[in-house]
Amino acid sequence: MTTANSSRETILNLRYGEQTKPHKLLWNEQIAALLQHRSVRNYLPDALPDGALESMVAAAQSASTSSNLHQWSVVAVTDPVLKAQIADLASGKKKDANGFIKRAPAVLLWVADLSRNNRITCEAGADTKVHDYLDAFVMATVDAALASQNAVVAAESMGLGVVYIGAMRNQAKALAALINLPQHSFVTFGLVVGRPANNPEKPETVRPRPPQEVVLHHNRYDAARSMQALDAYETEFHKFREGLGMGHWTWKDSVVYSNKFEYMDGRENLRHTVVERGFKLL
Amino acid sequence: MTTANSSRETILNLRYGEQTKPHKLLWNEQIAALLQHRSVRNYLPDALPDGALESMVAAAQSASTSSNLHQWSVVAVTDPVLKAQIADLASGKKKDANGFIKRAPAVLLWVADLSRNNRITCEAGADTKVHDYLDAFVMATVDAALASQNAVVAAESMGLGVVYIGAMRNQAKALAALINLPQHSFVTFGLVVGRPANNPEKPETVRPRPPQEVVLHHNRYDAARSMQALDAYETEFHKFREGLGMGHWTWKDSVVYSNKFEYMDGRENLRHTVVERGFKLL
Repeated sequence: MTTANSSRETILNLRYGEQTKPHKLLWNEQIAALLQHRSVRNYLPDALPDGALESMVAAAQSASTSSNLHQWSVVAVTDPVLKAQIADLASGKKKDANGFIKRAPAVLLWVADLSRNNRITCEAGADTKVHDYLDAFVMATVDAALASQNAVVAAESMGLGVVYIGAMRNQAKALAALINLPQHSFVTFGLVVGRPANNPEKPETVRPRPPQEVVLHHNRYDAARSMQALDAYETEFHKFREGLGMGHWTWKDSVVYSNKFEYMDGRENLRHTVVERGFKLL
Repeated sequence: MTTANSSRETILNLRYGEQTKPHKLLWNEQIAALLQHRSVRNYLPDALPDGALESMVAAAQSASTSSNLHQWSVVAVTDPVLKAQIADLASGKKKDANGFIKRAPAVLLWVADLSRNNRITCEAGADTKVHDYLDAFVMATVDAALASQNAVVAAESMGLGVVYIGAMRNQAKALAALINLPQHSFVTFGLVVGRPANNPEKPETVRPRPPQEVVLHHNRYDAARSMQALDAYETEFHKFREGLGMGHWTWKDSVVYSNKFEYMDGRENLRHTVVERGFKLL
């Protein structure tokens, strides 16, 4: 595991392994902190420290929000009964796959939220037609994501661990009902937060990423260069999985697996749910 | 303007003004840095420092990505001719509204990108049906947003300024063609980056946010409490605009204005464009 004092070399080795590393890189404590992110699924049951949630929300609010419209909300679930119900909704067919949500002290549900502004516009007697377009859905979704990522950076600075839960969209309709979401809003994803258990038998490490050439393009998109740069990642990813005793898979194998329909486990109904909840996606 | 050494009180006053501030708040340098974010639209023409882009991308790659699928890309546009064309696309009817993009050294186009994984899945002879669902569109959009927000935090730590440009969706079709985007991808938003000009006559300050009660809910969504907490923001927002000589508007006025149809300026075609680009949004 890396620490606050880990060297640049150690950090870059965990993030890129033996692949080509970005050769010129500005470095400071902030960059070092961001590069050391890892997802945590093993939590101590301790409640969040006093003020931690408020700091995360202040950080979230400080992120940019499209046209200063604040089209997001966050529902912080700490009630154990409710949290267990939510864990079950997110686990779906994979029984207790997200059972760690029950043991963690909190799960934050990040909401793409047009509801406030829809109501304000209605009350002013104006037309809310703009909210019927796909663009409004994207605006609110992006707002929620920018806010949550700032909250993640804040949480990690306080020694907390987090993991995003996209499976909160598996049973989007039931989840919205459970937490009384108003129309024109939906839970975009969840974020579990708590103190990492740091179980030495189940270490949760930084995951290797592909070389920068896979995602970074200059001036125009270069698909051939991006695909070519993935070759190195195949080897690196395979090595990482083997190290964790996870079996012989390359990254491309995992991509193909993720596209199996049964992996959706309810998410195929997302469109139906959000339309029912007032988004028209025109 | 705040500095790295600004006090907690100064920072919270800029962020929340005279509204109720979160009374218990854990504080450290990271939280202070996040809370001091401001959007910058006034740039020096200097090129990005060597290695700054690579650090931003390393930070972006270190963000969580749904199921480790890396369904995002970023196109860094620094070519002046291309950058000017992009600025014009984003300005649309509001002639040169985003003209500052021309003067800044770079605009990063954040792409929700299923193209790589679609190709990998096709090449493996497997079904790409999962990509036809709204959920895949959301996954890629969220991936792009989490990555970009980490890049923003990295950029600001290097003394750079940024501003998000949602207007990159106004002419989504033309923009995709201009930068050779492959099918199954679209530009979710842009991010201008460069050294802030810090023009004393046009100071770019931290914008006040509503009290936390507006966006933060405990266990279940409480619409009444959220709407009530907005009252304080009406006054605060009005005061902020008056301070900048921007005229008599409350926040709710700005919400109603943002819902005027002409404000979309092409974004009403987003659905048409993304469907044409291979997303089915089922």
